[in-house]
Amino acid sequence: MTSPYGLHRVVEPAGVLPQQAWRLDASPECGADEVVVDVERLNLDAASYRQLREEHGVAGVRRAVLDIVASRGKMQNPVTGSGGMLLGTVRAVGASSPLGLRVGDRVATLVSLTLTPLRITDGLARWDGADEQVPCSGTAVLFGRSIAAVLPDDLPAGLALSVLDVCGAPALTDRVVRRHGAPSVLVLGGGGKSGSLSLAAARRAGASRLVALVPTEREAGAVRDAGLADVVVVADARDPVAVAEAVGAPVDVTVVCVDVPGCEHGAILATADGGTVVFFSMATSFSAAALGAEGLAADVEMLVGNGYVPGHAAFALDLLRAEPAVRALFEHRQTRQA
Amino acid sequence: MTSPYGLHRVVEPAGVLPQQAWRLDASPECGADEVVVDVERLNLDAASYRQLREEHGVAGVRRAVLDIVASRGKMQNPVTGSGGMLLGTVRAVGASSPLGLRVGDRVATLVSLTLTPLRITDGLARWDGADEQVPCSGTAVLFGRSIAAVLPDDLPAGLALSVLDVCGAPALTDRVVRRHGAPSVLVLGGGGKSGSLSLAAARRAGASRLVALVPTEREAGAVRDAGLADVVVVADARDPVAVAEAVGAPVDVTVVCVDVPGCEHGAILATADGGTVVFFSMATSFSAAALGAEGLAADVEMLVGNGYVPGHAAFALDLLRAEPAVRALFEHRQTRQA
Repeated sequence: MTSPYGLHRVVEPAGVLPQQAWRLDASPECGADEVVVDVERLNLDAASYRQLREEHGVAGVRRAVLDIVASRGKMQNPVTGSGGMLLGTVRAVGASSPLGLRVGDRVATLVSLTLTPLRITDGLARWDGADEQVPCSGTAVLFGRSIAAVLPDDLPAGLALSVLDVCGAPALTDRVVRRHGAPSVLVLGGGGKSGSLSLAAARRAGASRLVALVPTEREAGAVRDAGLADVVVVADARDPVAVAEAVGAPVDVTVVCVDVPGCEHGAILATADGGTVVFFSMATSFSAAALGAEGLAADVEMLVGNGYVPGHAAFALDLLRAEPAVRALFEHRQTRQA
Repeated sequence: MTSPYGLHRVVEPAGVLPQQAWRLDASPECGADEVVVDVERLNLDAASYRQLREEHGVAGVRRAVLDIVASRGKMQNPVTGSGGMLLGTVRAVGASSPLGLRVGDRVATLVSLTLTPLRITDGLARWDGADEQVPCSGTAVLFGRSIAAVLPDDLPAGLALSVLDVCGAPALTDRVVRRHGAPSVLVLGGGGKSGSLSLAAARRAGASRLVALVPTEREAGAVRDAGLADVVVVADARDPVAVAEAVGAPVDVTVVCVDVPGCEHGAILATADGGTVVFFSMATSFSAAALGAEGLAADVEMLVGNGYVPGHAAFALDLLRAEPAVRALFEHRQTRQA
């Protein structure tokens, strides 16, 4: 009997969900409601890749990732707790899989690598460790309740993958901005992947004023040229006082897309009472957010950025197709990385 | 020049907010917009006290707390990041303090100890380490933007303090339940302080069905006798599968009041799509919540439990006065601890 949540793949400790598990069974036999995928590429979560690179150096990250996957049967960074996603081709579909996939479909997984059984068979020989896109041969397993998107024909795979990687952010930004009704919106890290998509989503959802905060003048220039925000300011998102000064009048909605720790208090200080802060960064500290708002006597609603919103993949891809400026930023980023 | 956020009290690192600071200046000289309090008692955050007791044992917690306060100028547990609150009497009020306090007022601080300059002068000689209520002599400093509640005349100080300690939970529960409109509500840890107040708040806010989840049959009996919930179930909140089975049909709103790590996935699994999870426990992991919802393809809104909601202190005290069953649970808890 297979479980839609993948309980049957948990090796230890027994009885927990796959994401909490220390070790999963990553064997490529396809269960009744499972799908097995031939992996082409891993896309490590930005916070995870950054932590691994800082700990092991570019030369050591390959070994670090191989060790994690070999010992855990999944790619879950033990420090950040985060994983990433993968790209591959469907190899086998169980008779009762509800995902609607067919053998040969090229897919991206939209559930985290932290709960996806994964086996690597090529020693990551083609990865130089220089960025979070990891060429990889191996197999992965999807459960009945997993989410995977078939890659679109009209976009390059690398581009689609990097959009799908962050597709929860624009979808949830859209929902929060519409609920507020023409709010002013601040995006911390507005020049990054989730940040630029969130800016575009906020504009389309009716934001009355859009502020992008970025760390460097160079990035500010790119966001200004793209026309993604009404105001672009430069500040260190980890410095609450600097953030509040740069932003000026507090905004109604703040979206945090900066993948470094310590951005909670700046986001709270920059947000007006009655406003909402959406934390998308996996580097967010729960206690820093909760105690920060309390300590600042800030009546703001704080949302844990849920990576799943129904329709999020199609929403993000449509946004990219409709917004040439966002697409240009993504392509520029890929060129820099290539 | 003093800052309403207490920036002038930060010793290192320079420029950060008091909560992020490693060390604060806890000297009892009263700045222009400050208030200095003679401390009577510290109330350690439950997650912090539990961690300290597990690391140092009952015999070692006194030394551990003294060392933290001596080195940091505040009581912030370096592992959990959390603090607690304090009870004391106003010693001095700066000429431009906006808090409306007078010398001699008996107050409880409603901002966390993690950002409150604190000096201990009695070596905590009267504390045996057996629970989180710490008799203490010393001084603390409130800033212009701090929050403190004058203790009510009609309630014993210990009782009022333990209500004020968790007063953010019922106020935010009230807001979320009203927004949903007669939702079904689950409270994980419904027998505890914040849990029982949240149950009472949810009932008054119009919850259509109230489920309390508690860890033991004994606690279940107490919650049943108090009539705080329509259904009381017993399960380990850290076991998502057990939580989902015990709760049955998913609820619209789940409030997490269990102060141990690992309750995120059970809360998510027990909540219906379109529902809301409010995390009040300081033991909540941001990444476990974010990736858990994504991994379970759960379209739930997840709130970081902000300890500050305007009017929260009066709201919680009124709830206690109006609900004899909640008061009885609090008094029973105090008797057990005494």
